[in-house]
Amino acid sequence: MFQIKPIDHQQDETIQHKIDNKTKPLGALGELESLAMQLAQILGDPICIHRPKLLVFAGDHGIAASGVSIVPSEVTTQMVVNFLEGGAAINAFCRQSGFEMEVIDCGIAQPLDMPGLINQRLGAGTNPIHRQSAMTIGAVKQGFAMAKARVAHHHAQGTNLLGFGEMGIGNTSSAAAIMAAALQVPVADCVGRGTGIDAATLKRKQALIEEALRIHSDSLDDPIELLAALGGFEIVQMTGAILAAAELNMVVVIDGFIASAAAIMAIKINANCRDYMVFAHKSDERGHLLMLEFLQARPLLNLGMRLGEGTGAALALPLIEAAASFFNDMASFDDMGIEIDTKQPPVS
Amino acid sequence: MFQIKPIDHQQDETIQHKIDNKTKPLGALGELESLAMQLAQILGDPICIHRPKLLVFAGDHGIAASGVSIVPSEVTTQMVVNFLEGGAAINAFCRQSGFEMEVIDCGIAQPLDMPGLINQRLGAGTNPIHRQSAMTIGAVKQGFAMAKARVAHHHAQGTNLLGFGEMGIGNTSSAAAIMAAALQVPVADCVGRGTGIDAATLKRKQALIEEALRIHSDSLDDPIELLAALGGFEIVQMTGAILAAAELNMVVVIDGFIASAAAIMAIKINANCRDYMVFAHKSDERGHLLMLEFLQARPLLNLGMRLGEGTGAALALPLIEAAASFFNDMASFDDMGIEIDTKQPPVS
Repeated sequence: MFQIKPIDHQQDETIQHKIDNKTKPLGALGELESLAMQLAQILGDPICIHRPKLLVFAGDHGIAASGVSIVPSEVTTQMVVNFLEGGAAINAFCRQSGFEMEVIDCGIAQPLDMPGLINQRLGAGTNPIHRQSAMTIGAVKQGFAMAKARVAHHHAQGTNLLGFGEMGIGNTSSAAAIMAAALQVPVADCVGRGTGIDAATLKRKQALIEEALRIHSDSLDDPIELLAALGGFEIVQMTGAILAAAELNMVVVIDGFIASAAAIMAIKINANCRDYMVFAHKSDERGHLLMLEFLQARPLLNLGMRLGEGTGAALALPLIEAAASFFNDMASFDDMGIEIDTKQPPVS
Repeated sequence: MFQIKPIDHQQDETIQHKIDNKTKPLGALGELESLAMQLAQILGDPICIHRPKLLVFAGDHGIAASGVSIVPSEVTTQMVVNFLEGGAAINAFCRQSGFEMEVIDCGIAQPLDMPGLINQRLGAGTNPIHRQSAMTIGAVKQGFAMAKARVAHHHAQGTNLLGFGEMGIGNTSSAAAIMAAALQVPVADCVGRGTGIDAATLKRKQALIEEALRIHSDSLDDPIELLAALGGFEIVQMTGAILAAAELNMVVVIDGFIASAAAIMAIKINANCRDYMVFAHKSDERGHLLMLEFLQARPLLNLGMRLGEGTGAALALPLIEAAASFFNDMASFDDMGIEIDTKQPPVS
C-alpha cells in the first residue's frame, strides 16, 4: 500500500562538507548538525520547510470504560472542542511556532458538527481490547486510506513537513499494548501512571493490557492484525499518515508516547519510513525511553512533558527550522576568505 | 553597585492555581510550567515578553598567545565581523527566533570601525592570566558601569528579556579558571577539549590555568578581585549586565559555559540575581555540568552544542515564549465549564 524510497545518500558527502565549512568549529552545533543532514537528505539544499502542519488525530477507546483513566471518554470530545476553539496547549504552541493545525476525528465517541473538524470516523470509539479486537482489519485499511488521502491533500498544498499528535482518553493503554506486543517487552515496562492514576488504577490498567495481549496472542505477528487487535482509530490513522508522508518525501515529526507507538507500527509495515522521522521530545510517560531505544531516536527536547496533543512536536518545530536556517544562511569559511583545516576547528 | 530585589513570592499561589487550572493534566507541561511560574513572578500576569535582545560580548585573552586554542586571537575579530555581516550561527538563530542581536566590543585585540558594533572597550585584550592579572580592579568596575549603562539603554526601549552570549578566543581558559576558583573544584574538572584541541594542548591549557590560580591565590576570595585576576573583558561585562538586568527586573537568559561563569560571578556579587536567570542549554564543554549543579539550574535544551555566541540562548527563546503563551492563552477548566479535581488530573 505504501511505496517508500529509502533516503538518498548520494549527496551525503557534499552536505557534510557544507556543514563542516560553516563558520563554526567542527561539530559545534551538535545534534542540530545531524538534523540538518537529515533535512537536506529529504528536502534538498537549500532546506525549504514549507507550510508545516500539525495533525491532531482524535479517537475514543472502549477500554476507557473499564477505569484505566481517571476521566471518562467524554473528555476526548471536550478536548476536541477545545482544540477547535483554540484553547488547548497545542493551539498555544502551534500559534507560537508557526504550525498550521488540523484536528481529525478518527472516531471519537460522540460525533461533533463543528467547523474545521475533519471527519475521518472509523466508528464511535474502539471495542475494548481486553475483550475483543479493537476494530476489524477492514477498518485498519480504511483508516490507512483516509490518512493517505488527507496527507496527499496537504502535500498538494505544498506542505513538506507534518507533525503528528493525538487525543483519546485511554490511548496510553492501547499504545502500551502495541508497544508490549511489537517490542516483545513486559507489560510492566510499557504501562505508566500516565498523568496521575493511582496504584490501584495502574494495576487494573496493567491487568487489562495483559488480558488483551493474551486473547489476541495469535494476531500479534502481522502489524495490520496487531493494529486491528490493539489499536485505536487515531493510532491507526497516525500510522497510515506517517507512511503516506514518507512516501511523499515529507519530513515527519513524531511527538511522544502515542505517536511513537504509531511510528513503531509504521516501521513494522515499511522500515524505510524511519528515514523521514524526526523525534520531537522524550515524554515523561514510562515506556517512552524504551520505545526511543527501539527507534534509535535521540529526541530534540526533554522537558518532562506528558500531555500528548502533538505539544512536543510543536515545540520542536523552531529547532528544526533553526537547523535549516544555519544550513541555508550561515557564511562558510570560503565566504570569509579564511583557510581552515576542518580537522582542527577553532575553539572559543 | 547593584540593588537587586529577590523575586516576589506573594502571587505564587495565584500563579500556580492559574497553571493548574489550564485544560491539561496537572504538571503535564513539565519544566515549561516551572518556567511559566518564574516568568510570571518576574514579569507579572499576563507574561508579556517585549523586544527580547541578545547581547554578544566580545573580548580577547592574553593567554591565547600561549597556545590554549588552535586558532589565534585574530579569529575573535573575524567572527565579530561575521556577526556584524550576519553570517554566524547566532545570526541565523536570532533571525529565526525573533531575537534582536547586538554585538559589543568589550576589548578585542584589533579594534574595528564597523556600523552596529557597540564600543565598550576595556583594552586590547586582557593580560595573560598565568603571568599577571587579566586587568585592574578599575577595569572591572568600569566594565560593570558600561554594561549597566547598556542594559539601562535596552530597558528604556522596553526590552524586558536579555540573552547573553560571547566570543573570545581563549575564553574557555578564563572561564575554567574562574570556575575552579569560585567553585573550589580541581582544574581538571573545569578544563575540556573545548571544540577539538589535542591532548598536548589540553595539558598545556590545564597547566597554565593551574599557574594562574597559583599566582593569584591571594585574590580569589573577593569576586571583583577574582574577575580582575582571571576574567576576560567580555566575561566581566556579561557579569555586570546580568546584575544590571536583574536590578531592572528583566529576565536573563544564560547561554553556555562562558555565560555560566559570568552567572556564577554575578551570584557571588549579589545572590538575588539568580531568581532572574533562565538557563538555556547544557553545553558539551566539560565542566558545564558541574557549573549547572552549582547554579541549581535545569537548562531547557541539551543538544550537544559547544559553540558559544549565545546560540543556546537564541534556541531557547521559542521555548520561553511557549511557556508564556500557554500561561497567557490556554483555556482554563472554568472557561470550559468543566469541574475538575486538580489532584486527579485526566490522562490521555
